[in-house]
Amino acid sequence: MRAILGGMKIRGVLLDLSGVLYLADRVVPGAPEALARLRGAGLPLRFLSNMTRYPAARVREHLAGLGYRIGAEELFTPPRAVRGWLQAEGRRCRLLVHPRLEGEFEGLVDPAGDVLVVGDAAETFTYERLNTAFRALMDGAELVAMGDNRYFREPDGLSLDIGPFVHALEYASGRQARILGKPAAGFFHLAVADMGLAPDEVLMVGDDVESDVLGALEAGLQAALVRTGKYRPGDEQRLAGTPAWVADDLAAVVDRLLED
Amino acid sequence: MRAILGGMKIRGVLLDLSGVLYLADRVVPGAPEALARLRGAGLPLRFLSNMTRYPAARVREHLAGLGYRIGAEELFTPPRAVRGWLQAEGRRCRLLVHPRLEGEFEGLVDPAGDVLVVGDAAETFTYERLNTAFRALMDGAELVAMGDNRYFREPDGLSLDIGPFVHALEYASGRQARILGKPAAGFFHLAVADMGLAPDEVLMVGDDVESDVLGALEAGLQAALVRTGKYRPGDEQRLAGTPAWVADDLAAVVDRLLED
Repeated sequence: MRAILGGMKIRGVLLDLSGVLYLADRVVPGAPEALARLRGAGLPLRFLSNMTRYPAARVREHLAGLGYRIGAEELFTPPRAVRGWLQAEGRRCRLLVHPRLEGEFEGLVDPAGDVLVVGDAAETFTYERLNTAFRALMDGAELVAMGDNRYFREPDGLSLDIGPFVHALEYASGRQARILGKPAAGFFHLAVADMGLAPDEVLMVGDDVESDVLGALEAGLQAALVRTGKYRPGDEQRLAGTPAWVADDLAAVVDRLLED
Repeated sequence: MRAILGGMKIRGVLLDLSGVLYLADRVVPGAPEALARLRGAGLPLRFLSNMTRYPAARVREHLAGLGYRIGAEELFTPPRAVRGWLQAEGRRCRLLVHPRLEGEFEGLVDPAGDVLVVGDAAETFTYERLNTAFRALMDGAELVAMGDNRYFREPDGLSLDIGPFVHALEYASGRQARILGKPAAGFFHLAVADMGLAPDEVLMVGDDVESDVLGALEAGLQAALVRTGKYRPGDEQRLAGTPAWVADDLAAVVDRLLED
């Protein structure tokens, strides 16, 4: 492997999905070719998304429709991280997730489980479901959240993401959530370990300066911000004094990564 | 007025409702007679409740059904405080409250209002309504909340109160709520001013050590904790070093208040 960054070998790459590979239903120009060159260089990859409104199979279908073929083992999402964590700990969970995500936890669900898993349940965040979740926490269940993002952009405006609901449950119960999603260090570490690498051998590429780039740096990874997707001029100022790269797009990151 | 407490004259009394005057559908023993004696002494009274699931008329009807006749001007609730604040500031609001509370804001509602008023909307806290409220905040509306209680007790268990939803909106929008309900000092001050008195001339009587008693002390009032309602043994330990009274019930508070 010849990829070198600031004297440090890069042996694996984590890629954010939306804003790096595609935007809604269009690919980011140059991204498919850049990804092909990364694969050609033999670098192990993981695709990291905080999306917890859809199951992994549907995310991969969407990517395939855009021409991106992603292996099941390459897609690293919060549900996958939570499932691995539950299995490693030998624990069962109750769910407050979008109904179409319930299948991701098959065999791990128990109405008396001592873990409450919260995802972006969207319009299924009802008072009744939140109250049932709150009572589980008051019964002693541990709160595990698949992210704590504040909001995201939809065609008709900004919309509430998972974070506000996690904070509601934290405030009500007096407990703090374990976050298994970006930008939590534990989530990056699980993805890195999944490639059999150490954090400082891995480069995270994303368009979200906070969740992708600062989160990865905090977790001891290397990181690159791309000026596509949700990037806004000025975001790079938050990276002053850090070793993060800033590049126009994924193609520019790959150019630099693979140059001799 | 001869009521003296620690050398300080008491010229008016604020009374919490649930847990002091009644519990569900039963009066607290001795409370009706104690209240009659307070009235007989000519002390101005205000009844302070954070209940924002029902309009004032319904609260007064419930009290009347228990034998308590409370004048409309004596019931001081968060909707009344918010209404007064909106009128004083000359502002219009959007509402995220229980539908049966909407009538309390007649003439003050405007779909483009620059204040968002949040009450305990209970089962009408839906994702869609929370998202509409969030968008109002991102449009620049100020967040005014009628309390920030974490939860309350229902016959079948604990249930989420207004506070978790206020915190969700605060986290999502990055704004801080103005709280017009107990234990916010501003709320106690509005009730005290409504009697034409100064904070240190007024005694707050409640069963909630945090919201009623510590809140009132923090706002510069005098305060008494009663051992009825949600009182739990040990609550008085949180009052060590404060000038708060602790008494068995409202009757005991009134005994002490009116003794020579």
